[in-house]
Amino acid sequence: MAKFFETPYGTKDFLPKEAAAKREIENRLAGLFSRYGYEEVVTPTMEFLETLKMSGGTVEQNLFKMFDQKNRTLALHHEMTTPIARLFVSRLKDTELPLKLSYNTSVFRFRQNQPQRQCEFYQAGVELLGVSNAYADAEIISLAAQSLKTSGLEKFQICLGQVEFANGLMEQFNLPLDVQGKIKAAIESHDIVGLEKIVDGLDGANVLKEIPKLHGGAEILKRARDLVENKKSQSALDNLEEIYKLADFYGDADKIIFDLGIIRDFEYYTGMVFEAYAPDVGYSLAGGGRYDRMLKDFGFACPATGFALGIERILQARELQGVDEDFSARNIYIGYHESKIETAIKRATELRNAGMTVDLALVPQTLEEATRTSVIKDFHELIYFSE
Amino acid sequence: MAKFFETPYGTKDFLPKEAAAKREIENRLAGLFSRYGYEEVVTPTMEFLETLKMSGGTVEQNLFKMFDQKNRTLALHHEMTTPIARLFVSRLKDTELPLKLSYNTSVFRFRQNQPQRQCEFYQAGVELLGVSNAYADAEIISLAAQSLKTSGLEKFQICLGQVEFANGLMEQFNLPLDVQGKIKAAIESHDIVGLEKIVDGLDGANVLKEIPKLHGGAEILKRARDLVENKKSQSALDNLEEIYKLADFYGDADKIIFDLGIIRDFEYYTGMVFEAYAPDVGYSLAGGGRYDRMLKDFGFACPATGFALGIERILQARELQGVDEDFSARNIYIGYHESKIETAIKRATELRNAGMTVDLALVPQTLEEATRTSVIKDFHELIYFSE
Repeated sequence: MAKFFETPYGTKDFLPKEAAAKREIENRLAGLFSRYGYEEVVTPTMEFLETLKMSGGTVEQNLFKMFDQKNRTLALHHEMTTPIARLFVSRLKDTELPLKLSYNTSVFRFRQNQPQRQCEFYQAGVELLGVSNAYADAEIISLAAQSLKTSGLEKFQICLGQVEFANGLMEQFNLPLDVQGKIKAAIESHDIVGLEKIVDGLDGANVLKEIPKLHGGAEILKRARDLVENKKSQSALDNLEEIYKLADFYGDADKIIFDLGIIRDFEYYTGMVFEAYAPDVGYSLAGGGRYDRMLKDFGFACPATGFALGIERILQARELQGVDEDFSARNIYIGYHESKIETAIKRATELRNAGMTVDLALVPQTLEEATRTSVIKDFHELIYFSE
Repeated sequence: MAKFFETPYGTKDFLPKEAAAKREIENRLAGLFSRYGYEEVVTPTMEFLETLKMSGGTVEQNLFKMFDQKNRTLALHHEMTTPIARLFVSRLKDTELPLKLSYNTSVFRFRQNQPQRQCEFYQAGVELLGVSNAYADAEIISLAAQSLKTSGLEKFQICLGQVEFANGLMEQFNLPLDVQGKIKAAIESHDIVGLEKIVDGLDGANVLKEIPKLHGGAEILKRARDLVENKKSQSALDNLEEIYKLADFYGDADKIIFDLGIIRDFEYYTGMVFEAYAPDVGYSLAGGGRYDRMLKDFGFACPATGFALGIERILQARELQGVDEDFSARNIYIGYHESKIETAIKRATELRNAGMTVDLALVPQTLEEATRTSVIKDFHELIYFSE
């Protein structure tokens, strides 16, 4: 097949049924975010490369890059936290805090570095700027849970961790930074064997090996407390306990599983982090956390927390969970004899103005032809104007 | 200001108020397209360069280009007619025709070649594939008019032309292709003086000079008929007459002005073409026309017609016409004493579930503090839970 028939590697078309589901889910999410007081913003698809590099030193290899007319390097945004940080410090930092923003857009990654993740994929999400406490984190987690519910998913879990728990442990045992990096990478990729190799022989090896196993209900926090003897890790556990209590007030505590091995693949997280999973879907539907340092790197210190949802993954999870909603309505078909075009147009207009979906035939037809079209295209109703 | 604070040349941020208006208008348009039986599709932001070049030979200089992992050249889509043609011939050509598709996305142009046009801007539009008659063109024009009305605009005109009118005249006078190209470019850019220079001394100069002046009500078609003596131009006028009659049945004929000098800036148009203008806005809000050859170039002959609306231009025209709708609702603010966080969360959840917009304070406040926040952020209602 000629190349111009194909879509580029890692990109896809949404045909009508899938596009209708996408629009419906995105609008439900936009409505939910709005009811929580989050206001939508739209940033350009491309940013200066320098802007996107603020998300972490190693991001550049994962960006689609191009040049502008003055030969400056631009890149397609790979996530929305960094562009929103840029928007905030450049145009909104005089706003009364907290500032609650939402978005809904496609993002781009040069490599497909996660299963089922396209090079272009759609994200909706929120950022909460200006509040450093657990109330903010609990609102974010509750909003993530409500987002999945409003998308039609009932079966899912929110795996909640805290990056300062592992950081505190590694400091407690005085591990050099390069070793800390290796340990984090092994934990992040769930590489238990690799982790054991790295920590064997180190101070605290037995404790560090436990981190990926700290996964479960509220009892995990007690087990974790027994392992640590440093203020940073203890504060991380206090933070998780408070978030859990508040999530209970929101009615969402039953969705939370603690997982102290969650670190997330962006370097900017500084506190609670979470990922949402559905049964039988092998990758996270949503993820986020607290990032209190990024805005300081942009020159304006301000705590922040937020999350992003993967729209395609939600659509896939809906299918796997058998969520049965048909968003593509094709209702009425109007056929007509040539002499009745005026009547047919006027009727179509009336019905459309009344909110109905009307396909008006674009060539005059006999009743037989109109009936055939109506059956083939599965209309609910046929109206025919004969001679 | 450091470069990472800026957006790239020709791109912009939509702050909350403008983003809310954008979402509202886009959803109204999606609803309208759906009621006319058009189904939304989503294509990737990037296509192979080869695909986008199908829209015309000179397009490449106007594209943002980049490389994929295999070093193939990709480009950001500059309009949606070509990607939808690609989608149709690769995945939908076995569908029963006519096929009616819609889209809503941003498109990219490397140069800002029109006033007020960004390098990234938003378009919504439709494509009607498989019907070559005036019924299809009239539906498209009516849908364009209804699109502007549903966007809140009452004052606008649809300037309707037909590219075959000028083509027929140039063939009638046996003008060489290069001269035809120059004449079209002069007409397209409304360069009356340039046009006169090109045609002076040529056969038919007096007639060719008239083309840009054929602008006005239905009487223009009669004047045009008196100028031409060839079948192609006459058929073009017949086609416009029929479209006008049908548009009258749709109730939209009063919005139509004939303008036989409209040629449009894409090379692929083959029949009726139109542009929609609002008073005091110096550029078109919408444009489109018939393109019966493009799908043949893709290997599958099929007539087609469609249009695109410029979302930013519609938002600007709304402002200029004083359309006063506020889409950013911030309704209820809930403040609380520290001891009442559970009550406050539960009340916020109740109200949100009932469809209301609720900002729950993220730090405990005194009544005075809560009142101050509520006033500064202009909430309609304050709820406070005291100790």
